[in-house]
Amino acid sequence: MNGAHALLSTLHANHVTTVFANPGTSEMHFVAGLDDVPDVRAILCLFEGVATGAADGYARVTGHPAATLLHLGPGLANGWANLHNARRAHSPLVNIVGDHATYHSILDAPLQSDIAAVAGAVSGWVRRSQSPNDVANDVASAISAAYGPPGQIATLILPADSSWGDVTQESPWPVALRHAPLAPDEVALERAVRLLRTKNAALFLGGTALNADQLALAHRVAQAAGVRVIMETFPAIMEHGAGIASPERLIYLSEFAIHQLADLEALIVIGSTPPVGFFAYPDVSSHVVSSDCEVLLLAPTNVDSRATLAALVELLAAPALSVEQGVRPLAPTGALTTESFAAAVAATMPEDLIIADESNTSGLHLYGATRFAPAHRLMTLTGGSIGYGLPVAVGAAVASGSRVLALESDGSMLYTPQALWTMAREQLDVTVVALSNRSYAILNLERQRVGAVSEGSASQRMLDLDSPPLDLGALAGAQGVPNVRVTTADELVAALNRSYATPGPMVIEAMLPKGLS
Amino acid sequence: MNGAHALLSTLHANHVTTVFANPGTSEMHFVAGLDDVPDVRAILCLFEGVATGAADGYARVTGHPAATLLHLGPGLANGWANLHNARRAHSPLVNIVGDHATYHSILDAPLQSDIAAVAGAVSGWVRRSQSPNDVANDVASAISAAYGPPGQIATLILPADSSWGDVTQESPWPVALRHAPLAPDEVALERAVRLLRTKNAALFLGGTALNADQLALAHRVAQAAGVRVIMETFPAIMEHGAGIASPERLIYLSEFAIHQLADLEALIVIGSTPPVGFFAYPDVSSHVVSSDCEVLLLAPTNVDSRATLAALVELLAAPALSVEQGVRPLAPTGALTTESFAAAVAATMPEDLIIADESNTSGLHLYGATRFAPAHRLMTLTGGSIGYGLPVAVGAAVASGSRVLALESDGSMLYTPQALWTMAREQLDVTVVALSNRSYAILNLERQRVGAVSEGSASQRMLDLDSPPLDLGALAGAQGVPNVRVTTADELVAALNRSYATPGPMVIEAMLPKGLS
Repeated sequence: MNGAHALLSTLHANHVTTVFANPGTSEMHFVAGLDDVPDVRAILCLFEGVATGAADGYARVTGHPAATLLHLGPGLANGWANLHNARRAHSPLVNIVGDHATYHSILDAPLQSDIAAVAGAVSGWVRRSQSPNDVANDVASAISAAYGPPGQIATLILPADSSWGDVTQESPWPVALRHAPLAPDEVALERAVRLLRTKNAALFLGGTALNADQLALAHRVAQAAGVRVIMETFPAIMEHGAGIASPERLIYLSEFAIHQLADLEALIVIGSTPPVGFFAYPDVSSHVVSSDCEVLLLAPTNVDSRATLAALVELLAAPALSVEQGVRPLAPTGALTTESFAAAVAATMPEDLIIADESNTSGLHLYGATRFAPAHRLMTLTGGSIGYGLPVAVGAAVASGSRVLALESDGSMLYTPQALWTMAREQLDVTVVALSNRSYAILNLERQRVGAVSEGSASQRMLDLDSPPLDLGALAGAQGVPNVRVTTADELVAALNRSYATPGPMVIEAMLPKGLS
Repeated sequence: MNGAHALLSTLHANHVTTVFANPGTSEMHFVAGLDDVPDVRAILCLFEGVATGAADGYARVTGHPAATLLHLGPGLANGWANLHNARRAHSPLVNIVGDHATYHSILDAPLQSDIAAVAGAVSGWVRRSQSPNDVANDVASAISAAYGPPGQIATLILPADSSWGDVTQESPWPVALRHAPLAPDEVALERAVRLLRTKNAALFLGGTALNADQLALAHRVAQAAGVRVIMETFPAIMEHGAGIASPERLIYLSEFAIHQLADLEALIVIGSTPPVGFFAYPDVSSHVVSSDCEVLLLAPTNVDSRATLAALVELLAAPALSVEQGVRPLAPTGALTTESFAAAVAATMPEDLIIADESNTSGLHLYGATRFAPAHRLMTLTGGSIGYGLPVAVGAAVASGSRVLALESDGSMLYTPQALWTMAREQLDVTVVALSNRSYAILNLERQRVGAVSEGSASQRMLDLDSPPLDLGALAGAQGVPNVRVTTADELVAALNRSYATPGPMVIEAMLPKGLS
């Protein structure tokens, strides 16, 4: 038995049975080992950013790690941006990076680079397996580290000779440890209750606290204390829709977020970190929470958010909640706008849909429109690194039996378009709405916000995507994904319904007016 | 005047007038500044790996740096793989990475990451511009550092407030220093002459030593001393074709390289480093040079390779050279194979073509076939990081008035396909031959070489790209590039001739039998 076999067997023994892979020469024994450990499913990705993003999506949906398989420093770097998003999502993820054989590294061959440095900048745990006998324990340690809590990236660097060499000390496959989150801090709970009773306060929720159960607990607390419930702008995954208590969402634009939070005297943070501005802007504070507001980090990301909320319910003797009722939007007709797009999504979505939202400016109305749509899960861009949507949709579809709806724009879709091929190859139930406005619309907005207001042609040309326009349907067709172009809301509704009724992936290119946001 | 303006003006004052950009919010003042410094040409890339690869191609062709513009850590990471190739090519490159405002970084906002760590792993020089007043000098220092010699990546991290803030200390734009390479070492030259006169020796050339002039000098030395001239396997750029002395090329596969070098008693290295195996393999040495062979590093990459070769010519009183004459292949007919592909390229290529070769297994016959084709330049995959070809072709086309021929495979083409859009947008004279064999053919080969010989379906499926097949022509069409599919050698010849006669880009999808290499 070689190291690769030990690796795959240890993954399998710890229920890490999905590997999103873009292998190279140094990973060939891992690939060969797949034939001996058939319960580990390897999914080929044509670019590493797809593999890492898919592992992130898998983790968001299941709470359980998938593995990646990447090829040396450049492969890791190609996957880094989506590892960054996964890090910000606190996704447990076992990131396996093949490397030169241990004795080969000193030769400075063309593919030699400082893998540990690149990995260290995005991982909570990094180790290099120095011999085949170490591999099983190293993998188990990686899985333990990935769990956290909070979940994190654990990068295992796998030299080729640790993979191909014989394992001489065999023992049962080691078992990864999964530590429970910490119990709530009693003193902090008391302080929270005092703030809730005496201040104009809000609960600020994020991370693990955004499922239906915990949202209900939070709203019971809020109802009892007469305070608000606000959620972070970009949740890793949340439950949303009919029958689920719906928090305010912190506004992305700093100046509006500052206004949103301006009258608060206390902010009680659960499952997240205190909010800050996404970017800095001239003459706008990066601190969106007022300096007069008392911030209590009640449950950091390594603390049990559910137990925290349940304790607050008990301490406040909060009565049961009647969740607000409402109706979903009717199917829109007429012109395709960002409003009718959001309504079309809300009007057509099936039960248990998982949405991967990377529609940026075009998705502005989505959260409101889906308030009373069937219960669903919403994933967003946690780390701000564009190109997350299609890969995360791949991982979510692999992990679940649910239909996944990926919402993209023409700018964002071009970072990791190779995910479409994996959707076709694995016949994943992913519907992609590709919103075409032939523009980096968000940057037009941002350029004005930072005060960079010149309208000269050289700068404007950096934000226009209309010369030539991208044919997002053809981009899908080139990779084997059925596709359709829609130009009205009616056509979008029909195409969504058709895709939901059809197994496998489909790309719907939705033509918005140019630059519309 | 703000920092961004100082940056662009200092670039311009130092003749760094091309920027390959994928900007975000933190780079908006840089973008706005383009309207004030119109002689700096910004070229939009839809993915950062295109921007960095294009800057590499620009540097290979001109010896002069271009700049990039990338968006924080994830943007840098997306461009890292092609920076790795540029590092291995010793390309001078000014890598500009926008960052959060200095005061914003401590807040750990979603896009915060350790940019310096990621940059440090691929750069010879890294600095963060701490204020608008520092920017001009920092840029000039970056340009100086980029020049080397040898050329290297200089990464300037540009906080948003250093970009938008006012420059209060104005002075003339600082001038970057360009140091000359070191003069040859006299003692080493004497030792080289002794080895050439007494041993079964070879000159081993790479880096800057591969232009026609220096290849002629090397062959005069070799002819006078009765030794061989061998070149590195993957040159950054070399001159090749009719009238140019042609060295042996070191074979990629280690076992063959070992055999190729086996009888040498001395290897005299100029412009490169001593060769090593590209990868390690079980039971094959990573040292391709025999331990009995004396290796003399006569001219490292920071030494003047031309002066070194000229000194050897003089010390050996080497007579003039008559370069071997031959005829280029005739236009092939019939089946499309890797042989007829190479012949078609050689038979049709115009004068002054620049080839970016990323055809991997499919390009095996290319170097031989083009031996007596019109003089041209050949660029190859210096760092082994796939996805270099299309971006480098973009940069070479921007930098030169020459037609560029990019040779891709279906596997390699899917790493940075977004380069096609920039080719269409800028109407670059790039001909792409996309060799479709529906397979990671090189990995089928490598899997066998590393001894991973299982033929089970799970592993084989990791190497097949035929389900679904990629439509490489449609991938181009989706991005505005005209395209044609050819299935015979005759059709390939016709398509190449048509593309060379037609301004702007064209993609020729060449259908090889499946898995052919």
